[in-house]
Order: sequence, then C-alpha cells, then structure tokens
Amino acid sequence: MRNSSRGAVDPFIVMDVMEAARAAEEAGRHIIHMEVGQPSSPAPAHARAVLAETMTSDPLGYTVALGLPALRQRIARLYGEWYNVDLDPARVVVTPGSSGGFILAFTAMFDAGDRVALGMPGYPSYRQILKALDLVPVEVPAKPENGYQLVPGDLMGVDYQGLMMASPANPTGTMLDRAELGAMIETCQAQGAAFLSDEIYHGIEYDKRAVTALELSDDVCVINSFSKYFSMTGWRVGWLVLPERSVRQVERLAQNLFICPSHAAQVAALAAMDCGEELQENLAVYARNRELMLEGLPKAGFDRIAPPDGAFYVYADVSHLTEDSRAFAAEILDKAGVAVTPGLDFDPERGHGTLRFSYARSTADIEEGLSRLQDFMKTRG
Amino acid sequence: MRNSSRGAVDPFIVMDVMEAARAAEEAGRHIIHMEVGQPSSPAPAHARAVLAETMTSDPLGYTVALGLPALRQRIARLYGEWYNVDLDPARVVVTPGSSGGFILAFTAMFDAGDRVALGMPGYPSYRQILKALDLVPVEVPAKPENGYQLVPGDLMGVDYQGLMMASPANPTGTMLDRAELGAMIETCQAQGAAFLSDEIYHGIEYDKRAVTALELSDDVCVINSFSKYFSMTGWRVGWLVLPERSVRQVERLAQNLFICPSHAAQVAALAAMDCGEELQENLAVYARNRELMLEGLPKAGFDRIAPPDGAFYVYADVSHLTEDSRAFAAEILDKAGVAVTPGLDFDPERGHGTLRFSYARSTADIEEGLSRLQDFMKTRG
Repeated sequence: MRNSSRGAVDPFIVMDVMEAARAAEEAGRHIIHMEVGQPSSPAPAHARAVLAETMTSDPLGYTVALGLPALRQRIARLYGEWYNVDLDPARVVVTPGSSGGFILAFTAMFDAGDRVALGMPGYPSYRQILKALDLVPVEVPAKPENGYQLVPGDLMGVDYQGLMMASPANPTGTMLDRAELGAMIETCQAQGAAFLSDEIYHGIEYDKRAVTALELSDDVCVINSFSKYFSMTGWRVGWLVLPERSVRQVERLAQNLFICPSHAAQVAALAAMDCGEELQENLAVYARNRELMLEGLPKAGFDRIAPPDGAFYVYADVSHLTEDSRAFAAEILDKAGVAVTPGLDFDPERGHGTLRFSYARSTADIEEGLSRLQDFMKTRG
Repeated sequence: MRNSSRGAVDPFIVMDVMEAARAAEEAGRHIIHMEVGQPSSPAPAHARAVLAETMTSDPLGYTVALGLPALRQRIARLYGEWYNVDLDPARVVVTPGSSGGFILAFTAMFDAGDRVALGMPGYPSYRQILKALDLVPVEVPAKPENGYQLVPGDLMGVDYQGLMMASPANPTGTMLDRAELGAMIETCQAQGAAFLSDEIYHGIEYDKRAVTALELSDDVCVINSFSKYFSMTGWRVGWLVLPERSVRQVERLAQNLFICPSHAAQVAALAAMDCGEELQENLAVYARNRELMLEGLPKAGFDRIAPPDGAFYVYADVSHLTEDSRAFAAEILDKAGVAVTPGLDFDPERGHGTLRFSYARSTADIEEGLSRLQDFMKTRG
C-alpha cells in the first residue's frame, strides 16, 4: 500500500504525554491532568434526555447535508442572543465538529498550493489539515507583547490567500477586542484573502466579552463547535457561518464528503442550546479554576504567562527554566505527577521554551495540581 | 469570500428527485420512495438501549483517534465470523462513516494529481471526494454483460495509482466472486496501484456470499460502515481495514482531520454488533422486497436489469424507453407517484438511459410502488 507525502503530517506531542500519563496511572500512580483540552463534564442532562427520548421514536437516518433546519435556526438565534447580530439561518452549516468545518471551509475556498497564514502559537491541526489537503500553512510568529495574537504589521510582506485567527485562542486563551479583530479582517480583505475566524472557545470568557467576526463583516467564515462551551467534545458537532454566496458550494461538498453530521449529535446539540443554567455552572467552575491558576502558577515559578481572557488554558513562557519543554513536561509528570503539554505542538520554533496548562477539570484537581507543581518547583530550585 | 475550483463538485441529481418528492408530499400527494439509499429501520433496539444507559454515567468525551479499542476488537472478530479471516484489531480504524474512511484513505495514499480508477456506474461521491482532494477520478466504463463490474481487460492502457471497487455495488447490487475479485486485485497490484474495496453493503446479500478483499490479500484497503447492514446511516460510523504499515499514517491524519468518530455512535455501533436477530429480520424484509422487485419490475416493462446479488437496489437499462432518464424519473414521480433515481448520478455518460430502484423501505411500500409502476407503464404504452 502507498503512503502519500501529504499524509505524512506531524504527530501530536500531547499524545505522547497522554500515553505516558496513562502508563503512570496503570502503574498505580495518581496523575493530575492539566494536559487535556476538554471539559470533564458530559453533555447537559436535558440534551441527553431529549436524545434518549428521540431514539425511541425517530429512526435517526441521514439529515440533509447542511444539518437539521431547526438546529440551523437555533444557532442563528444564538448570534442575536450573544452578539446582537441578526443572522440568516441559511448561512449556518452544521458540521461534524469544527474539524469537519475546517475541511469544508478549506476545500470550498482554496486550491492545491494556496497559502493560509496562521499565527504561531496556534492549534496544531490547522497546519496538519492544510497539509493533508495540499495547502501551504504559512506560520507567522505572533509576539508575546501582543498576547501571542497576530497584528497587521506581522503580515507585512507575507503572501497568503487565507488567514485563520482564533479568539479566545488555543493555547493562550488570549482574545482580540473589536478594534484588533476589525484591523485584522481589514488587513486580510485588503489582500483579497479569505478571513477565517475560529470561535470555538466563545462562551468560555471571563472579564471581557468575546467578539465574533460577524459583528464586523459578513464576508468572513466563522468556525464554531458544540465541544467546549456546550461540553460535547466527543459528539462531534459544530458549525460554520458563511457568506450567502458560499453556502451552495459548501453544501455540495458536505453532501459528498460527509453526507451529514451525526443525527443523534445534532438532536442533542439542539437541546443543549436550552441548557444555559447547567452550562453556566460549568463556566463558574472554569472561572474559579482560572483564579486559582492565576494565583498558584506564579507561586510555583510560572509567572511569564499570556493573559488568559477566555478558554481554559494558561500558556507559560518557561524558557528561563528549560531549553527543552518536552523533557521538562516529562520531568513534571514523573516527579510531580502532573501532566502538562509542551509548547512544541503549538509553536515548533519557540515551543521548546513554553508549556500549556489546562484548567478544564474539577476545582479539586486544579488545587491538588497547583500544590504539586509548587512542591516540585521548590525541590527543583 | 473565495470559491475554489476543486470545490466546484457536481450536485447530486437524486437530491432534486428527493426535493420534488417532498414538494409533492407537501402538496398532499402520497409518494412511494424508491429513490433513497437507506433503511427505514432505526439502529437496533439493544444498541439504542446501551447508548441511553451509557449516557447516564460516561461523559462521552473524545475517544482515541483510531476508535474505541473494544469496537476495533469486535470489528476484527466479525472478519472471523463472516469470512473466517483472522484479523489483527490493530489494523482496524473506526471512521466517521465510510465518508470519513474515504477521506482518510485518499489523503493517506495519494498526492495531488494522482489518478484513481473507478468503474462506471458507481457511487457518485467517489468522484466528488477525489476532486475535492485534488485527485483525478478516472472513469472506466464497466460492461452490462459483466454486471457493470470492471474486469481486468477494462483497465488495459489505463494509467492509475489507485483502484476503487465495490461488491455488492451501488447502484447495481452486483457482486464479484472470489476469482473475479482476485483477478482485479492482481491486475491492480501488478500496476503498483493501491486497491480499495468498498464493502459497505456486505451483510446485505441473498443467494451468494459476499467476498472481502481481505480473503485474497493483506495489501488492500477495505472501507465499510455501520450504515447499511447495521441500519445506522445517520449515526456516521464506519471503519477501515489497512495493511499494518499504513495504520500510523492514517492515525496521524485521523487525529488532525477528525479527532475521533462520534463517541456516542461508537458506543451504539459496538452494541449493534450483538443484535444479529433484529438485523436478520431487517434482511428478511429486503429479501422479500427483492423477490417482489424481480417479479414486478419486468411486469412493468423494466426487464433489462443487472443481477441484484446484494444491497437493496435494482439498476435498470431503460434506454429503449427514454433518452432522458431525468425527465423519465420526473414523469414517473408526477404520473405514478413513485420516486426513482435517474442513472446520471452514477454514470454521467450512459446514465441518461438508466434508472435505479431502491427496495430498502417496507414491503407494503414496495408492493404499492410496483403496482403503481405497472399501471403507469400500461397507460404510457
């Protein structure tokens, strides 16, 4: 059997961390998980109840490719509720997770060899999906003083047909305000490039409000998901918002590439959108965890951190502590019993000097993890 | 926003038929659905019960990218039960439907510009997915006297890096026996091309047994799904079987392109594999429907049909009745109240003279549909 060159994407380094953590647990050790980027909470109870009920009467066959009409309408309504944006449901496309959204958006917009600019650090799968689709990821370093977010000047002289931004971002949690986001959209559109806004962490925000690109322009592609705020990672359902004239192209691709997103997951997702109370309780846990992290990480010696405006991550510069974040993460796992992610997944250049700490788990875990990190760093000296 | 040229895939003509049928129903007419390629039965009752129970205790977060280990093991065991093939579970990859399997297999094996041979008629999305991935579908006409399946001679002088075969096939339901399938694998491998075997209709077979490519070679890529025999179309879960040395490349792609298949769907699929009794009842309905079709379609004048060894389709040559299958299908919908699929989706060249009839619905529907077709054709003369 043949192996393509485009399929030779990089492995996830975090997977090695997760495997090492699993092996340690199997050997009887207790590990605190600050490496994983997913809530420990399930889908909201009402969402699961509605699906359980629906399964008894509905055969749950294929849905239309763009997704259940009621779900598209409900997502459109969310933009009114969250951002005061009036959105036509016809512009909403339900996707198999944001992953499916990336595949649809990239194939609908770009031809082989097209270049898509990405700020570093960033979500590693952007690069790998682009590569698998014979597109060229253009990695543009973002500056720590800009919260590791790109600013217009960073794109000077860069050749690109698309630009992907995320706010709140992974791995940093930093957000762009309205003016900053608007400036990036303008810069991108002046180049004739497509602006893609990954808004998967919207809803998980603390002191300030996340801004959707749709507040600033209709000529953007928004990618979102039920995984994070709605606590439905494993269900694999997300959505795109597209300019009206792009919908038909994406629909044809979706018919062929996916047929439809999981019907059961769509039913659960629709119900999840009416579970504000439970979701706000999850959010209160993240908020409490974030306070603990902002207080406890500096005490352990991790004090060079990007402002974590949203999401459930803290990205720390540890270049004064190590030149090898991978070995450092292995040492922390081994000696402190805390799993953390080396920055190399997010930034192959500078990630040897950074770590990502996730605070998506329970508050008790965060407290224990911080205590272990403090003890470990004291001993390490 | 930009539109790529690779994204300009063809629309599904069957979608127009479904839309016309829906409109007719909305206007108060009763329509018999012989156009749809999915069971009307839900996932097995036990599968739904297990999921309902699991949802109460398991947060159903991400699974590992290759799928739940227990599901991979159970799928491997199926090859022993069905084909007496001893399969290492490490070679099984759970995918988001066979659609996700195609995307993974194509990106793992082929680079932009590579050519993949397909017999015509065939499943339309092969062509469109290849196109969306900047690959070149090479459409090779299969002969009616070979049951519309390719034979080695058909590939003489054809340049290809991959070959996709399906047995039982869509739209014909025809199957390859062991010798025929073996000859195609040998022909393909002699070219140094990758052999892909779409086995999505396995389990839905009547007088003879479907042969898996794994009985003949380990150096093949098998694509399968829970959609058809296991009656789980809308759940979007399928699988690949790969040569051992291809698994790591597919795993890295799956991590990035999909993260994982729907966890809930994987839980239901695993339970569905122990629902033989209910699934055999579904099969008995198809078998009865098939008998009715083989008796009733010729009575209506549709007597030039490929032998429907498996699946739930009959593909009929109607070139003596029309030169425009699309208009003919519209006429049948309008006058007989039966929705059928024009062959153009499956064979852009010769499909103007063919129709596909599906018998996946209830026996009562099939009886009524056949009666309407006979009356219509009598009147049409």
